[in-house]
Amino acid sequence: MNKQLQEIIQSVKPVSKERITETAHYLDTLTKPPGSLGRLEEIAKQLAGITDQGVPQVSPPGILVFAGDHGIVEEGVSAFPQEVTVQMIRNFLDGGAAINVFARQIGASLQVVDVGAAGEIDDDRLVTKKIAAGTANFLKTDAMTEAQMEAAILAGAESANTMIARGIKCLIVGEMGIGNTTAASALVAVLTGCSVEQTVGHGTGISAEKKLHKSRIIEEAIRLRDPNPDNPLNVLKKLGGYEIAAISGAILAAAQAGIPVIMDGFICTSGAMAAVRLNPYIKDYLFAGHVSQEPGHKMALEDIGAAPLLDLGLKLGEGTGAALAFPVLEAAARMRSEMATFDEASVTNK
Amino acid sequence: MNKQLQEIIQSVKPVSKERITETAHYLDTLTKPPGSLGRLEEIAKQLAGITDQGVPQVSPPGILVFAGDHGIVEEGVSAFPQEVTVQMIRNFLDGGAAINVFARQIGASLQVVDVGAAGEIDDDRLVTKKIAAGTANFLKTDAMTEAQMEAAILAGAESANTMIARGIKCLIVGEMGIGNTTAASALVAVLTGCSVEQTVGHGTGISAEKKLHKSRIIEEAIRLRDPNPDNPLNVLKKLGGYEIAAISGAILAAAQAGIPVIMDGFICTSGAMAAVRLNPYIKDYLFAGHVSQEPGHKMALEDIGAAPLLDLGLKLGEGTGAALAFPVLEAAARMRSEMATFDEASVTNK
Repeated sequence: MNKQLQEIIQSVKPVSKERITETAHYLDTLTKPPGSLGRLEEIAKQLAGITDQGVPQVSPPGILVFAGDHGIVEEGVSAFPQEVTVQMIRNFLDGGAAINVFARQIGASLQVVDVGAAGEIDDDRLVTKKIAAGTANFLKTDAMTEAQMEAAILAGAESANTMIARGIKCLIVGEMGIGNTTAASALVAVLTGCSVEQTVGHGTGISAEKKLHKSRIIEEAIRLRDPNPDNPLNVLKKLGGYEIAAISGAILAAAQAGIPVIMDGFICTSGAMAAVRLNPYIKDYLFAGHVSQEPGHKMALEDIGAAPLLDLGLKLGEGTGAALAFPVLEAAARMRSEMATFDEASVTNK
Repeated sequence: MNKQLQEIIQSVKPVSKERITETAHYLDTLTKPPGSLGRLEEIAKQLAGITDQGVPQVSPPGILVFAGDHGIVEEGVSAFPQEVTVQMIRNFLDGGAAINVFARQIGASLQVVDVGAAGEIDDDRLVTKKIAAGTANFLKTDAMTEAQMEAAILAGAESANTMIARGIKCLIVGEMGIGNTTAASALVAVLTGCSVEQTVGHGTGISAEKKLHKSRIIEEAIRLRDPNPDNPLNVLKKLGGYEIAAISGAILAAAQAGIPVIMDGFICTSGAMAAVRLNPYIKDYLFAGHVSQEPGHKMALEDIGAAPLLDLGLKLGEGTGAALAFPVLEAAARMRSEMATFDEASVTNK
């Protein structure tokens, strides 16, 4: 394994148990019945553990949208043509996509990173860390070489580190890539041991017939590629995507820096699974923004033990579900820092 | 029935079906697979219908916290003493409670309205519309007289109208009142026809033994008061509370003005149920902020057909769950107004 990558993986430490215990005690002094803020209290504790801070902050948040194309689209697995990846990158840069709208709402900086789009985009606002113009068709050969995959992970880590150096306190990860639910379904099936049928959904809107075709292609590809389910990098290289590998890398870097991460949907969570397999401590740095309509997303979330914050029937990606969940983390952090205690407010405790 | 109240009830019109249809068509032109923003798309349509606007806005939001005390606390149904109602009102006025924190986060104006607290509070920041110093113990007599109940509903409507006149675009309703889960459990049991056992929970944290006692008190009170389940005002008068009646009134006024309402938890939803029974059109003006840990809340939401936006295991009240859900409505409104269409962004549609 690449030495730099190995160092990042090994440097992720467990979250602070002391901060979690300290926060649990403090929350019971606030003017509310104990535990009455439910998951917000769990989040406040987790944020204290992740950041190793008594009064953790999550603002300002930063959003990384990694874009990549997929050779497997040759097999007719997607509802939209491949050109849409590049068109949507332009839409992100111009501020017209859903993720732009939600980024503005939460005051997040947004960076679009091309790690593997099939077309060229000449635009200063785009971060270009392109490894290749799309993955290879994984029905015919490995999606990426080992070097390409490692470069994509490191590109993701580097992107996250740049944002962290600029002062973000919470990382939101999203993606764009026509065909990437196919890659995510393959990854999640292999890593969880679920059947392909359980992890395949309608993507951006394919028919029942096309969904069956998509399942068969993935089954055949898994048979031919024969990935080792105990080796996440082997699975990622054979069936993954550049944006998925970059997401794994961004998560690794955020955990290394003690920054909480909000995962978006199915594709992000497949990248997170690989990161968690590389270092199980990663799990405690992750929040699941939502559970999407893709059936494999639920499998992936259960596998890493992450309970979604929202369930709004989304199936868009881009980071949208994670951005929509950010105000819940913000509320948890503010609750910890701004609420009065029973003593301060002279309220009778039970 | 009071004539003014009757006029408000009769003036609530159905939401605009034309605006809903118009919005549904428009949403399919935006740069996302059709329906991929799930419930956000439903919310955007509902907001258009409620406001009768092509591009509805929900900011700035306003929060009304109605406070009232309950004679039934004499029967030992609550975990906290009655004095906490007044102490928490002071905490709200000083900005130290959870609802204050979340109000600041969403940029909401917050008004605390005393419609029935047992103690006196001399503070300019409090809106005093006190009908009585707490309801009567409904195990012994009706909680309110008909005139008191109508006055409380009108006080709620007046409070909402004041906020609406000041320019709020979304109303968030919350409450404070030691003992009010007991009143809400009684109301919801009678109005839905569920058993009392199904609608009674642990409130702010009572033991299993005390919960059983609470159920028995409510069952006995329903038997003695013998409310007419087909007459919501009769049920409200016999078993309700001043803050619950005020919530019904605030909802009526918001619906009359074409302003969306986010309901908070169990107590708010019991007040909303009474409003919906008075005019079924009200239902379409309501959003359920969340589903709480109180078992009766789920029953009440199902009864009025409202699906919760959040499920975070909250059980605090004050309007907290509704305030936390506000960013979801804000996101839906912004999605409608800010996203680019396929044509505008030159993205290939399916």
